[in-house]
Amino acid sequence: MTISHPSRPGTALWVYAHPRRGSFNDRLFRAGTEALSRRYEVATSDLYAQGFDPVLGDRDLGRPAGRPGNIADLAGEAYARGELAPEVREEQSKLAAAELLVLQFPLWWYGVPAILKGWFDRVLTAGFAYGDLDPELGVPRRYGDGGLFGRRALVVVTAGEDDRSIGRRGISGDIDSLLFPLTHGTLWYVGIEALGLHVVHDADTLGAEGVDREIARLRDRLDGLDAEPARPFRRLRDGDYRDTRALREDLLPGRTDFGIHLAGDDRLGAAR
Amino acid sequence: MTISHPSRPGTALWVYAHPRRGSFNDRLFRAGTEALSRRYEVATSDLYAQGFDPVLGDRDLGRPAGRPGNIADLAGEAYARGELAPEVREEQSKLAAAELLVLQFPLWWYGVPAILKGWFDRVLTAGFAYGDLDPELGVPRRYGDGGLFGRRALVVVTAGEDDRSIGRRGISGDIDSLLFPLTHGTLWYVGIEALGLHVVHDADTLGAEGVDREIARLRDRLDGLDAEPARPFRRLRDGDYRDTRALREDLLPGRTDFGIHLAGDDRLGAAR
Repeated sequence: MTISHPSRPGTALWVYAHPRRGSFNDRLFRAGTEALSRRYEVATSDLYAQGFDPVLGDRDLGRPAGRPGNIADLAGEAYARGELAPEVREEQSKLAAAELLVLQFPLWWYGVPAILKGWFDRVLTAGFAYGDLDPELGVPRRYGDGGLFGRRALVVVTAGEDDRSIGRRGISGDIDSLLFPLTHGTLWYVGIEALGLHVVHDADTLGAEGVDREIARLRDRLDGLDAEPARPFRRLRDGDYRDTRALREDLLPGRTDFGIHLAGDDRLGAAR
Repeated sequence: MTISHPSRPGTALWVYAHPRRGSFNDRLFRAGTEALSRRYEVATSDLYAQGFDPVLGDRDLGRPAGRPGNIADLAGEAYARGELAPEVREEQSKLAAAELLVLQFPLWWYGVPAILKGWFDRVLTAGFAYGDLDPELGVPRRYGDGGLFGRRALVVVTAGEDDRSIGRRGISGDIDSLLFPLTHGTLWYVGIEALGLHVVHDADTLGAEGVDREIARLRDRLDGLDAEPARPFRRLRDGDYRDTRALREDLLPGRTDFGIHLAGDDRLGAAR
């Protein structure tokens, strides 16, 4: 495990996953990176423009191809031996250098587009992004203590649906829960704290005025980002999980929703 | 909207997304398709073997490339005009013919591998898999009444974690909730009822005996599949959602977890 704190404070990486030039997403991307560049050195990964191939396969698993082992272990060994593909190493390098990560994408089938999913699959390898027990800390390098510890992330997501459909009791499920595999299972797993989601609703029917309003809203959000508190999830090392697996029964008893994994309310009580 | 009931009862499609020959997943795939073929005509989509490209882009949006419009509408028009790529039309054809769909994949970053995510992104186009108001039924062709109405699906997922980590209060989140965007947001959206998940825990550390046990367990599951009740989610047409957007306040009041979208308990009460 070689990565800990970002090597260049004041550096951001904006990862963008939309296929169309001139689209609303394209406008948000341009305006957002421009606004952020006033305070950060902004690197971008425009995955469509780069022709990023999201399919994790043999080339990601080191030499010789075809030797036995599970995917994560093989990719981790390939990372350790410097055998990852150049485009993956390049993304890892950008990510390691960034203090702030922005992920921008349209919501497709209630998740990220394949090209972004594959960016996680290929880039967040064992060793680089997470690992087993850290000898110094004495904790596993995952869930809050992952390899990219110390970074924050903003998720910018555009959705065709309105705030009732993807709201708390919306038919499509609450957007915070729909994206839990991203904010918790991916970002928090590798040590990155996600800020509150930046959701654009009704993205297909905004009209010119709505587009301008959303661009201004994103700029405002980015301007105030450094002062925003993150809402971190529980850390493994805090002992909230029995044997690091399931939440202790005395914490939020009876509840099974994803909200139980947020560090927060139960810590503020007098009982602790 | 041209698809409704499966055109060939007794036909199954097994979609498989794992890169490695000789892997545990490969063994499950071979044993599973073999077992199922005793009762079904089984088509397969071995996405890695096919070299399926999961990146939705201009080629999926019809001619001429670059005309304005949102992605879903353009893909739907391309479908209606027969302009989709041959590999997408082929997958749609297999899916339309299938009464039973099996999706088999390893859990990567708490979701499906990119190659499978992109199969949804590219294959489940508007017009084919869902649509606006159906003139006969008077309901939107989505959430239970989607274009693939009448089909059932089995999700077979292998996970490195144990049943506590991805259990109801597990640190990684409950697997049923983690895959809600798949079982509800994708399958149910297009009209397909998902059966209970078939989860293989500790998939990286099973050993030879464990592998044999899991193969036998999958065979048993498949043998009894036709008698299994599906757990359908609520249908839009049942009026459980106000203006088709958010669950009515009198149904399971106060709850916000994904379980509220299952049709079930509140229907059995005397109040209805």
